[in-house]
Amino acid sequence: MNRDKLISLIQERQSYLCIGLDPDLEKIPAHLLTENDPIFTFNKQIIDSTRDLCVAYKPNLAFYEAQGVNGWKSFQKTVDYIGDSHFIIADAKRGDIGNTSDQYAQAFFIKMNCDAITVAPYMGKDSIDPFLRYPGKWAIILALTSNSGSKDFQYIEDEGLPLFETVIKKSKLWGSPENTMYVVGATHPEELRQIREMIPDHFLLVPGVGAQGGSLEDVSKNTLTSDFGLLVNVSRTVIYAGNDHNFAGKSRQAARNIQQAMTRFLSSKSGKK
Amino acid sequence: MNRDKLISLIQERQSYLCIGLDPDLEKIPAHLLTENDPIFTFNKQIIDSTRDLCVAYKPNLAFYEAQGVNGWKSFQKTVDYIGDSHFIIADAKRGDIGNTSDQYAQAFFIKMNCDAITVAPYMGKDSIDPFLRYPGKWAIILALTSNSGSKDFQYIEDEGLPLFETVIKKSKLWGSPENTMYVVGATHPEELRQIREMIPDHFLLVPGVGAQGGSLEDVSKNTLTSDFGLLVNVSRTVIYAGNDHNFAGKSRQAARNIQQAMTRFLSSKSGKK
Repeated sequence: MNRDKLISLIQERQSYLCIGLDPDLEKIPAHLLTENDPIFTFNKQIIDSTRDLCVAYKPNLAFYEAQGVNGWKSFQKTVDYIGDSHFIIADAKRGDIGNTSDQYAQAFFIKMNCDAITVAPYMGKDSIDPFLRYPGKWAIILALTSNSGSKDFQYIEDEGLPLFETVIKKSKLWGSPENTMYVVGATHPEELRQIREMIPDHFLLVPGVGAQGGSLEDVSKNTLTSDFGLLVNVSRTVIYAGNDHNFAGKSRQAARNIQQAMTRFLSSKSGKK
Repeated sequence: MNRDKLISLIQERQSYLCIGLDPDLEKIPAHLLTENDPIFTFNKQIIDSTRDLCVAYKPNLAFYEAQGVNGWKSFQKTVDYIGDSHFIIADAKRGDIGNTSDQYAQAFFIKMNCDAITVAPYMGKDSIDPFLRYPGKWAIILALTSNSGSKDFQYIEDEGLPLFETVIKKSKLWGSPENTMYVVGATHPEELRQIREMIPDHFLLVPGVGAQGGSLEDVSKNTLTSDFGLLVNVSRTVIYAGNDHNFAGKSRQAARNIQQAMTRFLSSKSGKK
């Protein structure tokens, strides 16, 4: 999905919500465990109940791989079921030497037909380049992550810039706002504003709202642009909103609350223009 | 597999060779492409012909995932076929927030029964901790990689230490030489010596010998210890040594040449003690 199409989806649905599909067999409703494919059954009901409220889904590969081969089957079925009405992000945190990243790009862009993949920058340019060669496909590069470990290395300074800014400064030259986004955690509101100044045209994928404590309002105020430029991911708050037979209804309500808040932030943004 | 067992395997086989299983459908012998599972058939013959010459196999997940669900099936069959006679490294370069890394640990240590997984350090301590909780299982942390992109971020200095040394200095406190190894590319002979001084007891996994240009002799001289402490990975030079019906025989010869050189380096090392 290209940038224009993503922007128009956000406009139409008045939402920049990305729903993280992290299905954990220990957390999904117990009545689903007797299904042939509990993970896909769970995802399907979440997707059915939230399609009109979000623009993206982000399956987190770890939760599929924990089930081995069957998990990859559930992942494939999930991606196929979502279809092309939504931007699909394989949250896979891949990245390796060039010939290997090239295989990962084939896996997620061609074989599994995702729109984007999250990638770790540690191995540098040739580990990311292979993801930038597919029109309408995206590398979403880790810049400043939402977890406590983000403090271990991401703030190391070089010529006055913390590592996460060095990553952005270098890697923004490798691709363009048409094929590169950045992960910046909602748990870092001040840095979000700085990053938006560095890259006014790039989309940001912002996790960390909800279970991890970030504020949707702060994120939105600091980073929304006239092209929107923002996807906010929420996983646990939406998908585990309920745990009974009506779990999908509760997920819808949780997603609806977020989408309505987004609509307000979008209109206050356009009012300011 | 614990450290003592790995050390005794190296002693017995007079080899610290790890063979990288990176099966690419465009490179494996054409006559295998009509097989039901060309990747597993290829791996099986490579494994059969090299078992006595190496102590570890390292399937690179990218090459399996490029085939989607079927690739994960081939990966599982390969790991099962190797069995417990060898140290099995899932070369997966994973790493994510704690609850997600925990799922990856379950995937590769429990579900797939690998001994070790390669992990990227960018997200810090809580992204690596979950891999350090399984006795006899290992996190192999990227320190200084063998590719050209290693120069983009891994040399950024903090208090006089390049990032790859900062990664080692911090992360060696998170685990121990019983559950942590480091990836250091053979293409950096000087840094290998420095790293060995920083972590005299940790195993190093060294890629980059062969197709990428690193020297086995330099690596061995700079890093072998009395506990060996070294696994040298070779992928393309061994697995693509031949391309006809006798490809596995040619792979055996290539692996044999490397193993014989290793035997020499091991005996010259023990001669010096």
